[in-house]
Amino acid sequence: MSLIVVGSMAFDQIETPFGKSDRIVGGAATYIAWSASQLVQPVNQISVVGGDFPQEELDALAARGVNLEGVQVKKDQRSFFWAGRYHMDMNSRDTLETQLNVLADFEPVVPDSYQDSEFLMLGNLAPAVQHSVIRQMRRKPKLTVLDTMNFWMESAMPDLERVLQDVDVLLINDSEARQLSAQYSLVRAAREIMKMGPKYLVIKKGEHGALLFHEDLVFVAPALPLEEVFDPTGAGDTFAGGFIGYLARTRDISFENMKSAVIVGSAMASFSVEKFGTTRMKEIDKSDVESRIRQFIDLVNFEIQLT
Amino acid sequence: MSLIVVGSMAFDQIETPFGKSDRIVGGAATYIAWSASQLVQPVNQISVVGGDFPQEELDALAARGVNLEGVQVKKDQRSFFWAGRYHMDMNSRDTLETQLNVLADFEPVVPDSYQDSEFLMLGNLAPAVQHSVIRQMRRKPKLTVLDTMNFWMESAMPDLERVLQDVDVLLINDSEARQLSAQYSLVRAAREIMKMGPKYLVIKKGEHGALLFHEDLVFVAPALPLEEVFDPTGAGDTFAGGFIGYLARTRDISFENMKSAVIVGSAMASFSVEKFGTTRMKEIDKSDVESRIRQFIDLVNFEIQLT
Repeated sequence: MSLIVVGSMAFDQIETPFGKSDRIVGGAATYIAWSASQLVQPVNQISVVGGDFPQEELDALAARGVNLEGVQVKKDQRSFFWAGRYHMDMNSRDTLETQLNVLADFEPVVPDSYQDSEFLMLGNLAPAVQHSVIRQMRRKPKLTVLDTMNFWMESAMPDLERVLQDVDVLLINDSEARQLSAQYSLVRAAREIMKMGPKYLVIKKGEHGALLFHEDLVFVAPALPLEEVFDPTGAGDTFAGGFIGYLARTRDISFENMKSAVIVGSAMASFSVEKFGTTRMKEIDKSDVESRIRQFIDLVNFEIQLT
Repeated sequence: MSLIVVGSMAFDQIETPFGKSDRIVGGAATYIAWSASQLVQPVNQISVVGGDFPQEELDALAARGVNLEGVQVKKDQRSFFWAGRYHMDMNSRDTLETQLNVLADFEPVVPDSYQDSEFLMLGNLAPAVQHSVIRQMRRKPKLTVLDTMNFWMESAMPDLERVLQDVDVLLINDSEARQLSAQYSLVRAAREIMKMGPKYLVIKKGEHGALLFHEDLVFVAPALPLEEVFDPTGAGDTFAGGFIGYLARTRDISFENMKSAVIVGSAMASFSVEKFGTTRMKEIDKSDVESRIRQFIDLVNFEIQLT
């Protein structure tokens, strides 16, 4: 038992300049689980769904090695629902509707069988809920990674500051890094954020790739240049799943290995955006992942004559 | 005699969120020459200045191995002048004032002594003026690289389309690539632009790095994450100088070597933005350049366990 994933499992309704989805399955923990399970199994899932969440989606995850013991099913309630519309650049979006439903009073419980897990991935949720999972762990995980968003910086900053003191790696996007640090330069933002607790920081920049910071070290990962970004929903969560999945698989939390984990996360995210929702994540297999990672090697590899 | 550089040598007045410059020396060919001469000498310069252009600036370039035989000095006229103001993101700027002066009727002349040059770098200028240099070359250069900007797409598109048919490499930024191709996706934009003539395309994305395209190949170079971008003026020209300088030095125009040239260009540009105008470019030496290139290697290098 190696990796715990915490987060929402939900419904999304998505509009992009290229089309509009029905109500489809989404949620941070759904994307993280589909992505991480390509690399490590089991994925010990902690989440909550309503009676409306499709059993076949749960079965599909279970078949992929996702342990659902920690997923609460509230038969009489409805799953979390989010509707949003992306702008042309696909980096910005408007929330059209949010129905908290089962998430409103979510109290995650870590099953006994999960207690040995070495890696803890806290997907985007209320910081106090994320913190309650950390506090339930009887043994501190080898690595705790947290994803969050601007919404919590605006509505629950004291909770966020508290949980940040107990995590090793923070994943956020560039505008969130600027908001959290009140610094425009991402180098300065990283320095400020690492004073808040996390020793490692990943700043996701969408089509512009991702930056990994630790002390005075920095690593830049590209995004794969794509002909079309069909649906960016869940790209950040899919990245998180690839990142933590690779670290849990290799059990090496050095900066050097985190660089590779950022590449694996970027590779997984590049699949996710190719189709609506989790469609693409369900299609790919290990050989797709390997060949995509090879594309990333070609993308950045160069030989230079210095003399 | 190996490299010809064509472009403006001028005065700039720059406002950024961090400060305001006096009237300082700038111009595309000035930046390109300072950058390229770190890698290859002589740089055979073609430009035009007025009687107001400081002799000590010309002397400093000459001392760096820049051949000024092709630089016309029009004693009774004034040099080109541009004033601009950068926004907070440093990727967008407003032009406050443009005085064409000597550029208004610039007719470049390629000196006989330049005719053997194998590499031709056409810095940003009116496309018809760029084209006149190509037509004066008695032997087609091994490689012709052209830089341009949105202004010419709006005011001289037929001329630009004509000159593009005669160049090997086009350097533009991301918004210009979108404008030139009428495509939002940079992968699609690149495909359209390479149909217009250039077999290679470099799309510069400022703090997000640069992309190199050729046929179905793509390479991504990072920008160095900087604590502060002090003045982005000339960063694109400095990139161009490093790019063509490395190619002229190595005399290898394969895609593989162009990847390295993009890294060298990125390294040179990362110096340029550290101080106002050409200040930083005058300070650095070969060992600074080498250590900066090593930083780029560390920035993107990773080892991944695929099995």
